[in-house]
Amino acid sequence: MSHSNPTLPAPAGPVRPGPTARTALRPAVAARILGGFWHRRREVNAHICIPQGPLLLESAGNLRNLRLAAAGTTGGADPADFRGDYPFMDSDVYKWLEAAAWQLGGSGARADDGLAEEVDRMIALVAAAQEPDGYLNTWFQVTKGGRRYGDLRWGHELYCAGHLIQAAVAHHRSTGGKDLLAVAVRFADHLDAVFGPDKQIDGFDGHPEVETALVELYRETGERRYLDLAGYFVDRRGHGLLGGEAYCQDRVPVRQQANVEGHVVRQLYLLAAAADLAAETGEAELLAACERLWTVMVATKTHITGGLGAHHDEEDFGDPFELPNERAYCETCAAVASIHFSWRMALLTGDARYSDLIERTLFNGFLAGVSLDGERWLYVNPLQVRDGHNDIGGDQSARRTRWFRCACCPPNVMRLLSSLEHYIVSTDDAGLQVHQYATGRYTGDLDGDALVVSVHTDYPWSGTVRLTVEDCPAGRPWTLSLRVPQWSTDHKLTVAGQQSEATVTHAGWLCLERTWSPGDSVTLDLAMAPVPVAADPRVDAVRGCVAIERGPLVYCLEGIDHPGGGLDDIGIDLSEPLTDEHHPDLLDGVVTVTAAGYRHAFPNNGWWPYRAATGTVPGTARPTKPRDSPPTLTAVPYYAWANRQDGAMRVWIPTR
Amino acid sequence: MSHSNPTLPAPAGPVRPGPTARTALRPAVAARILGGFWHRRREVNAHICIPQGPLLLESAGNLRNLRLAAAGTTGGADPADFRGDYPFMDSDVYKWLEAAAWQLGGSGARADDGLAEEVDRMIALVAAAQEPDGYLNTWFQVTKGGRRYGDLRWGHELYCAGHLIQAAVAHHRSTGGKDLLAVAVRFADHLDAVFGPDKQIDGFDGHPEVETALVELYRETGERRYLDLAGYFVDRRGHGLLGGEAYCQDRVPVRQQANVEGHVVRQLYLLAAAADLAAETGEAELLAACERLWTVMVATKTHITGGLGAHHDEEDFGDPFELPNERAYCETCAAVASIHFSWRMALLTGDARYSDLIERTLFNGFLAGVSLDGERWLYVNPLQVRDGHNDIGGDQSARRTRWFRCACCPPNVMRLLSSLEHYIVSTDDAGLQVHQYATGRYTGDLDGDALVVSVHTDYPWSGTVRLTVEDCPAGRPWTLSLRVPQWSTDHKLTVAGQQSEATVTHAGWLCLERTWSPGDSVTLDLAMAPVPVAADPRVDAVRGCVAIERGPLVYCLEGIDHPGGGLDDIGIDLSEPLTDEHHPDLLDGVVTVTAAGYRHAFPNNGWWPYRAATGTVPGTARPTKPRDSPPTLTAVPYYAWANRQDGAMRVWIPTR
Repeated sequence: MSHSNPTLPAPAGPVRPGPTARTALRPAVAARILGGFWHRRREVNAHICIPQGPLLLESAGNLRNLRLAAAGTTGGADPADFRGDYPFMDSDVYKWLEAAAWQLGGSGARADDGLAEEVDRMIALVAAAQEPDGYLNTWFQVTKGGRRYGDLRWGHELYCAGHLIQAAVAHHRSTGGKDLLAVAVRFADHLDAVFGPDKQIDGFDGHPEVETALVELYRETGERRYLDLAGYFVDRRGHGLLGGEAYCQDRVPVRQQANVEGHVVRQLYLLAAAADLAAETGEAELLAACERLWTVMVATKTHITGGLGAHHDEEDFGDPFELPNERAYCETCAAVASIHFSWRMALLTGDARYSDLIERTLFNGFLAGVSLDGERWLYVNPLQVRDGHNDIGGDQSARRTRWFRCACCPPNVMRLLSSLEHYIVSTDDAGLQVHQYATGRYTGDLDGDALVVSVHTDYPWSGTVRLTVEDCPAGRPWTLSLRVPQWSTDHKLTVAGQQSEATVTHAGWLCLERTWSPGDSVTLDLAMAPVPVAADPRVDAVRGCVAIERGPLVYCLEGIDHPGGGLDDIGIDLSEPLTDEHHPDLLDGVVTVTAAGYRHAFPNNGWWPYRAATGTVPGTARPTKPRDSPPTLTAVPYYAWANRQDGAMRVWIPTR
Repeated sequence: MSHSNPTLPAPAGPVRPGPTARTALRPAVAARILGGFWHRRREVNAHICIPQGPLLLESAGNLRNLRLAAAGTTGGADPADFRGDYPFMDSDVYKWLEAAAWQLGGSGARADDGLAEEVDRMIALVAAAQEPDGYLNTWFQVTKGGRRYGDLRWGHELYCAGHLIQAAVAHHRSTGGKDLLAVAVRFADHLDAVFGPDKQIDGFDGHPEVETALVELYRETGERRYLDLAGYFVDRRGHGLLGGEAYCQDRVPVRQQANVEGHVVRQLYLLAAAADLAAETGEAELLAACERLWTVMVATKTHITGGLGAHHDEEDFGDPFELPNERAYCETCAAVASIHFSWRMALLTGDARYSDLIERTLFNGFLAGVSLDGERWLYVNPLQVRDGHNDIGGDQSARRTRWFRCACCPPNVMRLLSSLEHYIVSTDDAGLQVHQYATGRYTGDLDGDALVVSVHTDYPWSGTVRLTVEDCPAGRPWTLSLRVPQWSTDHKLTVAGQQSEATVTHAGWLCLERTWSPGDSVTLDLAMAPVPVAADPRVDAVRGCVAIERGPLVYCLEGIDHPGGGLDDIGIDLSEPLTDEHHPDLLDGVVTVTAAGYRHAFPNNGWWPYRAATGTVPGTARPTKPRDSPPTLTAVPYYAWANRQDGAMRVWIPTR
């Protein structure tokens, strides 16, 4: 659709389809999260995570590296002074800049916290490190004598360029700032001069990222060359130019892929770019590939938390239905990447299931990645930690960590949280769609008129969502669409005080078409009760187990709540009902779920843990005589695990 | 015990306790496997695997590297000419030499196959590459300008020295050859001069191996310094000298360890050395640690195949009861190392359970590592390969491979197979013990008199073992001890034609004390039927599943035997009996097991594979209406998998 509107601002968040893009939905023109669950998490992000960023980037050496590169362009630098083990150290800086940029333009922005000045200082540092021809990567500038593009498979030069460009787009779109955009444009022009079928280098980066960034730069500048370059990078993959590995997304062209494969974050960043390209070009084949791959990924390779990635080794997806618990990889960055891909698909297609996955990922696999106090992080997000877990440490530890040697995840969390309000609502020619339920004020446009809706809710603790029309054109019908979440089995709807019989009419949406007036209100009541959930039987890792869900939240057991026995021998007795209770003082305020449980009476194995299955196979019959008094199981939201103690945890609980 | 005997030869296999060692059992003085199952596997090893070794070592560059080092000692070599990615390339050569050495002295030796000459040529090459002061490591000599011991954590210099010394001991013990022993002694003397608390370097190698080798060199030469140096290397571990990582066996001193941890092969080589030291020094604390760690390892971290290692990442043990199927690591080298450790413990303590684990490992986790034709290898030995498995390739592939970039496993298999006959029988002051059942002729000693027993059996296909006393001192009672395997639930014994009531009297042994005469025979009938086996309920990965065993063999299903549906959705119906059948033409001759099965009827999940557990949790109730006609399941021995087709495989089969 073509849609220009002089009276309303342009959407100010990530993913702003270009003027000629063909998408089912458009981003809201304004969005403000003002209270409730996500407001609290964004406050921690704004006041703890983002302000600490520069200190952490300084102590990890990222900023020092930029200063070395800046010095190098005039006076030379000693390679031994470089800090960090990876050629993508710069990207942490850019991701922090992007996070800060969304923050500056968003509902959490404050004039007096010095963030704008900090951002300007860092932009100046980045600009100083850039080579005259636009190139910038401190690893290659400082430690490789400026030799470029010799190792596209591992060098991450275009990956870093992508994050720089994305940060620049965020800064410009969010604040109007032009300095970083100028750096990004110089870099993009350099890439456009170097890379191409008949240019210096016919190739692409082992790690996708520059592709989405170039599409966003095209949207921000209107410069078509950037879109074409992104398309070129996507098209060249899968022909073996980088060695043909799935790890580098080079085994098969994306349009021909049958399932997601290889390095998870690389696959998802590539698919986000494919969705961006499909949006801007209208290419049906690429759109079909995106829909096919999203669907098969979710149906066969997604943990119940929305987490993705089964292998620590190569950070790989693993096989269909290979969804281990204690060795789930579920990198925090993969959750961010999944949300990026899904939001593009939501806008492209208008299908609510994409926002279903976003909701599940946000509340579970993503949010677990940062501690409640904003001080510690998880790189991997397992679904089980055994009693007495012997952690080998390092980035891939199941323990929350202050910062990582490979610190990709923390600033990824920061940039998603600071831009989160842009994922809540969309708009189209018929009205406004509410994808996520978060207290705030959201503005769409209807042919140049503002549609303003406010939302009040205690979601996810309560399923009651009250929406009020604050402003809209008079005397003209339009449709307010509410997503009925995938987890919901029962809902009630009250429109302007009257119970409504509206049902889910289209692709997961509850569509309310009326001639609305300011002050009209709608209450959606999603019945919310704790539910045991089972997996497809092909998920071998959880045979005979259930997970507990309540609303959009996946729950887990923690060792700290189950003294006297740990979690390795625990089971759940589903003949008793699950109950829930609000604890305002626990874990920043949560609803806990309790269930009847038991402990397995273990056979005396002696030295050998396997024995003839005479009679009953463990896991197939419920123990009738608990060894000890049966414990009550207490489940807490998965996102909040490991905030009290580093101990045992499990999402999937044996039923027998 | 002290035991010198002028009339009988000294034991000629690996692990020959020294003259003052205190062990419950001693190795047999002679051992010959002459027929049956292991004879066939050893024939393949002797005629295919070992003869191909030099060609493979040539094409992988290992021999070239030795020539470069040899040239370097006189005329200089170009570092760029070095081949291979690892500082332990030399160890592949030494392990092949050890394999060939045992072969030369064993029952498969032939005078006309040129093996002795090939060994001599390779020994000459090794000797030429050795530095004048005894040092030898081609990686450091050729690519590092001869700089030594700068990276003990990763350098593998002492690890390679250990394999060289072990090969030299094998060559001397097996053939009397002195040339390689001289090289080894020079290297050992160099190490003894450099390493020590008050010498040049106070440290040890990140990868244990030199420790067992030095003990064996002490045993071969009588030079006490080598034993002391081995003890020093073991004692220094666990104090953080190499950084304190479990990976390098440096987190905690072995005497204080509570469970096995870190890199599996490193842990097991270290424990083999600890057992060697306990044998030679009689130290009770070290023996207790070995017994404790063996027991907890087997009870909590051992796959049903005897395989060890749950993590691809860091080749780590993982947590207790963390025993995944598709991502089981179970490195072939770990199976070899486990056998080395267990055999030392068997001799030290006389407890039959150590040989129980050896049997299980030999027939399953170890033997799967080499194809039936001896041409292809497995580095990792998973317990499940899914339908349509997407293999990322490389050394850690679940596909059999001609050779590896890191080729540690193939020559490890070769050296174990060529020395296998020495693991069959032991002797003590009371008589002779039969640990494994393999057709052949085995000689123990009783105060200088030979005890010769021959064995005839079709084991593991049949449980009938016929033993005949071929020679023994007249008129003097002695004890023939037969191991009753851990898997056995029913056996009959016939002694000299009479049914015997002998029961298992001591630590897993059936002890028959008589005044034996040549010609006396004993028949042990171990009832052998296919049995479904279940795991401790804490092994989450196999909840609700059984594995099939028959005798010492673990079975698996392969996709090739189950057309029309794959293995991901298959189950076993245990209400029908398991049956077995001998197939002489299948997989070099195997007994297959058949069972009634079913296929799961999958829910139509749509795009989301999890759903409310209303009613039944998958895995807890047997499907009552099979989707298709229920298939018959055909199981083949696990060791023989992937010899017909690279396809799906599973050991653990859902029962519901």
